[in-house]
Amino acid sequence: MLPFNLTILGSSSATPTSERNPTSQLLNHAEKLFLIDCGEGTQVSLRRMHIHFQRIKYIFISHLHGDHFFGLIGLISSMHLLGRTKPLYIFGPEPLKEILDIQLKASQTSLLYPLEFRPTQAEKPEMIFEDQLISVSSFPLLHRIPTTGFLFKEKPGELKIKKDVIDLLKVPVHLIPKLKAGADFMAIDGTLHPNSLFTQPPPRPRSYAFCSDTAYYENIIPEIAGADLLYHETTFMNNRVANAIEKFHSTTGQAATIAQKANVKKLLIGHYSARYDDLQPLLGEAKAIFPETELAEEGMVFEI
Amino acid sequence: MLPFNLTILGSSSATPTSERNPTSQLLNHAEKLFLIDCGEGTQVSLRRMHIHFQRIKYIFISHLHGDHFFGLIGLISSMHLLGRTKPLYIFGPEPLKEILDIQLKASQTSLLYPLEFRPTQAEKPEMIFEDQLISVSSFPLLHRIPTTGFLFKEKPGELKIKKDVIDLLKVPVHLIPKLKAGADFMAIDGTLHPNSLFTQPPPRPRSYAFCSDTAYYENIIPEIAGADLLYHETTFMNNRVANAIEKFHSTTGQAATIAQKANVKKLLIGHYSARYDDLQPLLGEAKAIFPETELAEEGMVFEI
Repeated sequence: MLPFNLTILGSSSATPTSERNPTSQLLNHAEKLFLIDCGEGTQVSLRRMHIHFQRIKYIFISHLHGDHFFGLIGLISSMHLLGRTKPLYIFGPEPLKEILDIQLKASQTSLLYPLEFRPTQAEKPEMIFEDQLISVSSFPLLHRIPTTGFLFKEKPGELKIKKDVIDLLKVPVHLIPKLKAGADFMAIDGTLHPNSLFTQPPPRPRSYAFCSDTAYYENIIPEIAGADLLYHETTFMNNRVANAIEKFHSTTGQAATIAQKANVKKLLIGHYSARYDDLQPLLGEAKAIFPETELAEEGMVFEI
Repeated sequence: MLPFNLTILGSSSATPTSERNPTSQLLNHAEKLFLIDCGEGTQVSLRRMHIHFQRIKYIFISHLHGDHFFGLIGLISSMHLLGRTKPLYIFGPEPLKEILDIQLKASQTSLLYPLEFRPTQAEKPEMIFEDQLISVSSFPLLHRIPTTGFLFKEKPGELKIKKDVIDLLKVPVHLIPKLKAGADFMAIDGTLHPNSLFTQPPPRPRSYAFCSDTAYYENIIPEIAGADLLYHETTFMNNRVANAIEKFHSTTGQAATIAQKANVKKLLIGHYSARYDDLQPLLGEAKAIFPETELAEEGMVFEI
C-alpha cells in the first residue's frame, strides 16, 4: 500500500498560543506532499519536525481568515531564499493572489521558481487537481467568508495479477494487460476462465476529507461520505453551541454528528478555542456520538 | 532613572530557523512599549516571554523585506481578536498600509481599535514621533529597498532642585519653577546666587539606535553619534565581505567600525546569517575593533 498519512502542524483556532499553532496540516500521499492551510509559523513547525519543505509541491488554502494563511507568504519567501527552482502550485480563494503579489512586489522579490496560482470558488463542488494516483476536489463549507473543504481521494488502482495462476494455465504474456483491464481468458481447449480467477481487486481507494472552518452543515455529507479520515473543526464544546452558531463554527457534538451521518471511518477534531487547555473533555463529547474520534495535536501523524 | 531597556525577540536574517526568529525587538521606555520590526512569529515570542502585547502602542517597521514585517498582520489580527480597543500606531514604508488593508479586507475584518498608519520615507532623516519623554527619528540606511534606521532619544529632563539649599537660603516657593528653568536667585540682601547652587543637572538623555538592514554606510554616523546602545546588523563575518556588499548587508568588522566612528557606548550585533550556528566568532571579530560589543540573542534584555 502506498504511504498515505497526515501530520498535524497546527490545531489552534483564531490566534496562535504558546502551545498551539494555527491551522496547518501536511498530507503525504505516495511521498508527494500536500500542505493544507498555512497559519503563521508553519515554516518553523515544518523545520522543527524535520520536514524538508522544498518537497511540498501543492498548497491548499481553505479561506482567508488569517489563522489559515498568514504563514504562506513567509513559506513562499523562504522557499525562494533557499534556492527553490521547482514550481509551486497554490489553490485558494482568488484574493489570495493579490495578497501574495503585493508583498512580493514590496520587497522587490522575483521568485526563482514558478508560482502557479489556481483560484478556488466556494459556490459548488469542483475537481481542482488530479494526477495518476490521487484527485483533490473542493466543496463549499458554511462560514462567514467564502470557505472550501477539500477531499483527497485515491484513484482506483489496477487489478493485481495472480502470477501463480497465470503460470499454471499458461496465459500468454501479451494477454496480461487485457486481464489487468478486466477481460476473461479463453483457454486453447475453449474453456472460458473468468477474470476473477487471475486477478485480485486493487486496494480500496482511500480518502481524506478536510473541513475547517464551518458551521454545522449537512450539505457536505455527500462530499465526504465514507472517507477513511475526516478532519472536522470543533472550535467549541457542546455548551457553547450559541457561540458556534454566531461565529459559524462547530461544536464537538456537531462534528461527531456529521462524521456519523457521513459514515466515515475515523474523525479527527481540531481548531480548538484557546479557552480549552485540556482537550480530553472535547474528545469525550465527540466520542459519545462517534466513538472513532481522535484529537489533532501538533506533531501527531495519522495513517489513512 | 526611568526604565529604558531592549528585549531581543528575533536575531535571524532572511528566514526563521528552528532556533532563531527573524528580526523583532521590544523597547521599553518608562513602561511605554515600542515594537521595532515584526518578523513572522513575533506574537508567539511575545507570549512565550510573557509580554502582554496589548501594551504595545507603537510599532516601527524598518523596511518591507519579509523577515522584518511578515508577523505584523498576525499581531494586528490577534490584538483585534483579543478585544483591543486602544489605538495602535504603525510607522513604516508607505506600501505597508495597502498590504495590511488588503488582508483585513479579504477576511472581512473591521478592527475593533483605531489603526493609525504613519508612512516613513527613506530620503532623509526625519522626526517621526515625540511625546514628553522621548522622540523617535528615522534616517536612511543603505539597502536594496527603501530602509530606515530609528533613533530613540530621551528628552532632556528638568533641572533637579536641591531642597536643602532652598530651605537654607529661604527661597520663596513661587520662584522654584524659575530655578528649574535655569534662573539665578537674588537674595533680599542683594546677593546673586547662581542657579547651579540650587539645582543639579538632569540625568543625561539616553538613546538607542537601530540599524537593520544596511550595507556599510558612514552617512548614518551623525544620526547615531554617541548613542548609549547601537544595534547594527552583522549578517556576515569578515571573510564574506563580498557577500555583504552584494546583498547590501554588513560584516562584523563593518558594524564595529561604524560603532567606533560614531563613538557609541555599546554595540549590539544581530541579523545573523543562518550559516552561523556558533556566534562567538562573530563576537570576537567585532570586539577586535570595538570591545564593547554584545550578541543579540532571543530573550536577552539590554539596559540602555
